[in-house]
Amino acid sequence: MTKNECEEKKSPQWGDLEGLLHKKTDNKTKPPGSLGLLEDMAIQIGLIQNTLNPEIVKPSMLVFAADHGLTDEGISPYPKDVTWQMVMNFCAGGAAINVFCKQNGIGLNVIDVGVDFDFPAGLPIQHSKIARGSRNMRKEPAMSSGDCQKAMNIGAEAVRKRAAEGSNTISFGEMGIGNTSASSLLMHKFTGIPVEECTGRGAGCNNQQVYHKTSVLKEIAEKYEANSPEEILATFGGLEIAAMVGALLEAKQQNMVILVDGFIASAAALTAIKIDASVKDNCIFCHVSGENGHRKMLDYLGARPLLQLNMRLGEGTGAAVALPLVKSAVAFLREMSSMEDAGVSDKH
Amino acid sequence: MTKNECEEKKSPQWGDLEGLLHKKTDNKTKPPGSLGLLEDMAIQIGLIQNTLNPEIVKPSMLVFAADHGLTDEGISPYPKDVTWQMVMNFCAGGAAINVFCKQNGIGLNVIDVGVDFDFPAGLPIQHSKIARGSRNMRKEPAMSSGDCQKAMNIGAEAVRKRAAEGSNTISFGEMGIGNTSASSLLMHKFTGIPVEECTGRGAGCNNQQVYHKTSVLKEIAEKYEANSPEEILATFGGLEIAAMVGALLEAKQQNMVILVDGFIASAAALTAIKIDASVKDNCIFCHVSGENGHRKMLDYLGARPLLQLNMRLGEGTGAAVALPLVKSAVAFLREMSSMEDAGVSDKH
Repeated sequence: MTKNECEEKKSPQWGDLEGLLHKKTDNKTKPPGSLGLLEDMAIQIGLIQNTLNPEIVKPSMLVFAADHGLTDEGISPYPKDVTWQMVMNFCAGGAAINVFCKQNGIGLNVIDVGVDFDFPAGLPIQHSKIARGSRNMRKEPAMSSGDCQKAMNIGAEAVRKRAAEGSNTISFGEMGIGNTSASSLLMHKFTGIPVEECTGRGAGCNNQQVYHKTSVLKEIAEKYEANSPEEILATFGGLEIAAMVGALLEAKQQNMVILVDGFIASAAALTAIKIDASVKDNCIFCHVSGENGHRKMLDYLGARPLLQLNMRLGEGTGAAVALPLVKSAVAFLREMSSMEDAGVSDKH
Repeated sequence: MTKNECEEKKSPQWGDLEGLLHKKTDNKTKPPGSLGLLEDMAIQIGLIQNTLNPEIVKPSMLVFAADHGLTDEGISPYPKDVTWQMVMNFCAGGAAINVFCKQNGIGLNVIDVGVDFDFPAGLPIQHSKIARGSRNMRKEPAMSSGDCQKAMNIGAEAVRKRAAEGSNTISFGEMGIGNTSASSLLMHKFTGIPVEECTGRGAGCNNQQVYHKTSVLKEIAEKYEANSPEEILATFGGLEIAAMVGALLEAKQQNMVILVDGFIASAAALTAIKIDASVKDNCIFCHVSGENGHRKMLDYLGARPLLQLNMRLGEGTGAAVALPLVKSAVAFLREMSSMEDAGVSDKH
């Protein structure tokens, strides 16, 4: 932080930071409002960081991986082995999230919280396996409340570690065959939107598979009583989703900018917001995915997504490709000249 | 270019490059289609560059500046002095386009083709002034056909220079108070969409100013006979728009990826496409701006914009902030592992 920014932090005007951020934004050498959502984002990040000169420092990406017992019910077109295979692909640097994190200077960490596979100890991942996947929700709740809390703690601890390393911007990705199903159920429980409207093709279901998946999810939705957000998460979620929820809550505590990825990450954000509504102040919703239900979930949250590219890959990829736009927002606020300094005339 | 790529270029299968690009994209470690528009863009750039391994090299931005005689009719809320003042701001590095080009590693060149101001010789701009602005279209055509051709030649020459320096990706920005009016008229003439639907707030007209602007533009639209795209451009365009048209046509000749910015840049692209329809193959439409008419213009062109951020600044800013997404597209195609190489299972 420069001396100038420290002085700004001490300013007696600081109580009206939002007003000052608007004024600074409007005084840049451009018509007011002409940078659209970048302006809103710059102001949001200024408020998160409590400064007129926000910056993105050491952006990081945590990808949580876990399996889902529900895959026994044929709700995904891919075999659950893809979860561990993709974790190995992350380790080899060959997945989309590797490519986009490398491109955009994002530190990537992969955390196994529940993959049904014995990874070699030497892999460049964090070994924090709680169980070999969540349970089959058609038969019993996805997680015990104890395991759910353990997963949340692992997510929170990982965020604290990144924050201690100086990261002020964080994003969460996931790998877990079956996790769109869990996310659809969380969405349904928290929003009241019918299961059919919360359920989509996931990694690539055909019409018949979507029909089957929807009927299984409707049955599960009616099977359990769950009231608190934490109960709903434990019953209908998954280990990687619970880890993301814990991570989101901690990222808010650490005053970090949170880049929210697609359908599953947004379901985790929705859960975290149900636990602590203030989490939303720190969230930038990076994209609306091609997954059915995501648009309605974002509408429910009152979120305006940055990107609409019909992406539906997960892993955190939508957040990773959106980071440069977030950097553009803070860059214009920090670096552009004001109308006065540049000697540019105002309107007639 | 690596040896491997050279070999690919010689492959007898090369006739079906599009098919091979689709196959390569689908074989990446992700569900087919799950990177959405990034996949379409990767294939488009592969076809432009005639390779399975496209890349973005030395991206460049040419900002053309000129004044518009039509500002005498009060069609902009800003005084035309803002044109030269903003050019000075570009030189000082304080404008949005400076910030975004710096952020994203884009080489920026500013070219005066018709600003009504005597710039000092030592400024870091290209001095190619053809006239001190286009003429007042309410009284006479904006440009003579000779001046219009001169501007097109300057644009083309600037592109040849960038291509000779090794740039394979180029974008065009503009600065010219009054140039949304010229763009609205070009849009109207080329699409047949009524003037009212082509006319918007520009840099910030209020309702009364939009009403006045629209009535002036309707009068001008009916005043002249112009048939060929070049005649329409000379009659209703502007010097910086003509330079952009020449630049677009040359960028196509040079096989460059063309990043199209907002309303004015899209009007130039529309004009270039009317002259040579193949220009469109090389165009990536980077954003749909907040300017009324832009969405309809893109629909007319069958273009799907990358970004929808309600930006409406011009200067090339929408293209500059979109470049990282274009880089993401080529990065996944070049760098991601295939399903076979990563040992990831396919669908059941």
